[in-house]
Amino acid sequence: MATPPTIGVRNYDIPALRELDVAHHLPAQSSYKLQQDLGGSRIITHAQGSTIYDGEGHAILDGMAGLWCVNVGYGRPELAEVAARQMEELPFYNTFFRTATVPPIELATKLAGLLGGKLQHVFFNNSGSESNDTVFRLVRTYWGLKGEPNRTVFISRHNAYHGSTVASASLGGMTFMHAQGGLPIPGIEHVMQPYPFGEGFGEDPEAFATRAAQAIEDRILAVGPENVAAFIGEPVQGAGGVIIPPPGYWQKVEAICRKYGILLVSDEVICGFGRLGEWFGFQHYGISPDIVSMAKGLSSGYLPISATGVSSEIVEVLRASGEEFVHGYTYSGHPVSAAVALRNLQIIEDEHLVDRVREDVGPYLNAALQRLADQPLVGEVRSIGLLGAVEIVAEKGTNKRHGTGGQAGPIVRDHCIAGGLMVRAIRDSIVMSPPLVITHEEIDRLVGIIGAALDASMEQLAAL
Amino acid sequence: MATPPTIGVRNYDIPALRELDVAHHLPAQSSYKLQQDLGGSRIITHAQGSTIYDGEGHAILDGMAGLWCVNVGYGRPELAEVAARQMEELPFYNTFFRTATVPPIELATKLAGLLGGKLQHVFFNNSGSESNDTVFRLVRTYWGLKGEPNRTVFISRHNAYHGSTVASASLGGMTFMHAQGGLPIPGIEHVMQPYPFGEGFGEDPEAFATRAAQAIEDRILAVGPENVAAFIGEPVQGAGGVIIPPPGYWQKVEAICRKYGILLVSDEVICGFGRLGEWFGFQHYGISPDIVSMAKGLSSGYLPISATGVSSEIVEVLRASGEEFVHGYTYSGHPVSAAVALRNLQIIEDEHLVDRVREDVGPYLNAALQRLADQPLVGEVRSIGLLGAVEIVAEKGTNKRHGTGGQAGPIVRDHCIAGGLMVRAIRDSIVMSPPLVITHEEIDRLVGIIGAALDASMEQLAAL
Repeated sequence: MATPPTIGVRNYDIPALRELDVAHHLPAQSSYKLQQDLGGSRIITHAQGSTIYDGEGHAILDGMAGLWCVNVGYGRPELAEVAARQMEELPFYNTFFRTATVPPIELATKLAGLLGGKLQHVFFNNSGSESNDTVFRLVRTYWGLKGEPNRTVFISRHNAYHGSTVASASLGGMTFMHAQGGLPIPGIEHVMQPYPFGEGFGEDPEAFATRAAQAIEDRILAVGPENVAAFIGEPVQGAGGVIIPPPGYWQKVEAICRKYGILLVSDEVICGFGRLGEWFGFQHYGISPDIVSMAKGLSSGYLPISATGVSSEIVEVLRASGEEFVHGYTYSGHPVSAAVALRNLQIIEDEHLVDRVREDVGPYLNAALQRLADQPLVGEVRSIGLLGAVEIVAEKGTNKRHGTGGQAGPIVRDHCIAGGLMVRAIRDSIVMSPPLVITHEEIDRLVGIIGAALDASMEQLAAL
Repeated sequence: MATPPTIGVRNYDIPALRELDVAHHLPAQSSYKLQQDLGGSRIITHAQGSTIYDGEGHAILDGMAGLWCVNVGYGRPELAEVAARQMEELPFYNTFFRTATVPPIELATKLAGLLGGKLQHVFFNNSGSESNDTVFRLVRTYWGLKGEPNRTVFISRHNAYHGSTVASASLGGMTFMHAQGGLPIPGIEHVMQPYPFGEGFGEDPEAFATRAAQAIEDRILAVGPENVAAFIGEPVQGAGGVIIPPPGYWQKVEAICRKYGILLVSDEVICGFGRLGEWFGFQHYGISPDIVSMAKGLSSGYLPISATGVSSEIVEVLRASGEEFVHGYTYSGHPVSAAVALRNLQIIEDEHLVDRVREDVGPYLNAALQRLADQPLVGEVRSIGLLGAVEIVAEKGTNKRHGTGGQAGPIVRDHCIAGGLMVRAIRDSIVMSPPLVITHEEIDRLVGIIGAALDASMEQLAAL
């Protein structure tokens, strides 16, 4: 699908734009010194299928689907058409004034069908971060109205990613984010992550699943179950490094939540919309959360939108109270973003992309990654659906890292990018999350470039 | 400009949509019981100029510009064209990976020019809430890197509105929002608002300005200046009820911030982009903030986007540290939203809408509102640019409210909506913030409908 773009691409003055980038633009999650030293960001100008193109004319296979989000791939004129039509008809109206517009109602209805079961209500936001802020405020409001106002504590995991607002970064377990700005805010407890190659190396998977789940129960008991509001987790931790929990973990977690009457929140920002070969990650693991955060694949990143799926029981408590839920964003249920998301879901359905991940490209990626398993630097390859990771180790058969740890990933990643593949380095691993439309040929190329990058990195890594 | 839409409007099954609204859609800032009791939200289907149309065929003059945001009015085909073209060329790419796309660079450059002075750097987000979360994290990171990590406390005002995330709602001073979810988070101090008709009723304006500013200095001294990071305020409080501070207030506030080396943050989410007759509210008041939050009028609400303007001094501290600012959203600098915002700013420039507010429709609205001053229920009319408020009182010449207070606004508002005008009730006032393209005829109609609604409300209000 890496055909050339079908529309004319503008000629940009790339050197001038890179100067302006340094002079005026503050990119996300960046060192502004590095931005300056590099003479500005690499400028991506256009894209098609699973390929992005930069201003210097490089074609780069996008192993990350943008940022875990462009599930249907780039270059979908039908999404542009839907956006333009909605923008001409009604570019905006709010949902604060006992009003709504058509697209968010249709999208909420569609999502309720996909979520199924008790998850019949949808609140809209603009980002995964905002969705998790909604979770924070909704959960506490629910317990207050239900007459258990002491239930305020959230339990999350180390190395979880739930967003970048103050509250969502606090819900997340990224210590480097907590170090800036005095996070986490009070009322959030972090427990061990279910990371077999890290915390569970060499351990029996079932025993490790039990131990990782037990850490949650231990913390609940330490905090006092009557004070715990919810447990939040990504089915598979994405930005944490594609951490695939051991079999049985999620069933155990769900049972613990039920045992103590604690709400279970599934952060589906990365795992949702086909990434794991089901519509949602919780469906893959066969659990039944009370609240679900959705973003990214919801619109395939074509426009900003996120959604929070909420169980009927929670909504009934709010309704019974008669109280206003005094939360929401100007652009909650933005009609243009919602219309594009709805059409995006239709593409996923029409092209059977969820089945494709589960039955075709997911297993194909898994098999292709196995070809890297014997490379001397590779400690483990793992994948689930179209999420994959390659662990880089200093000593084959161990999880020992090069140098002080955390340096290997960026080195290998830079070789990947130079080789024409965009992937992400997370500590000592290379992770991938390509568009769901990626072809077999592209998967072979993706894996081949990672292999070559590993080979090319060996001397540098040995010198660490 | 309330001409009929130029495009075909779809036929919707409104009764079915209203049922689905109740069944699946959770609107923002709403009572879900009321939504159910009303049989679903009023569905806005299309709009043109300053007029919105609902599914029952009502044409409603939009006195709120959506939600303080549709500055250029509805029905701008050029914005739809720009969105569609960008979406076909490059619907998304992130700014995390030492990468950028063209539209956010161009938009950051444009904003730096409009902001002027030291505000030469722009960080992008999706909403005003997220921008203020960025402020929170950026300010604390800045002080940490500058070697004053104790400077963590934000000073804000009662009745301020800075968003709906946990942190931005905490920065805000809305007690009814704080009551849900255990807000505010620690490290935020709220002081009195500069509300002449409320806290300063009957007081000499200059003395009141001094007293309101002094409250800030007193709190700084109580907290310890060495612990205070920043002061944040809206030039004119919007959701607080169009609170126009007394003359001299902002100069005094700025001087206090400078005296103690405290960062000054201007929340321009409502006041920016022409609303007060200048590009930004801080320009109207002649002050020089260190950080500026922008949203709403930035894209006229056509797509979700917000921006945080940052001074060169702050960026220099981040650059000198070499550290990564570990903050940002997947959709920070979204290329489609940024392209639409840029084109929206061009419309504002091409049609001289900022000048139009300052020299034409702003004064016209102010004069028209004076016609309501003698109505028996009216305690005060006030406006600045295209922000206006009508205070409803129980006794002429006082600021005494009907009943227990807070009930009058919704009653009058409902009469306004029934009369074909969308305005907002904030406690005992009616506020307005129409599109910058509103015509003289529409302003006359707006004021006429409010007058009729006041007349029609007299018996109900007397019975409170």
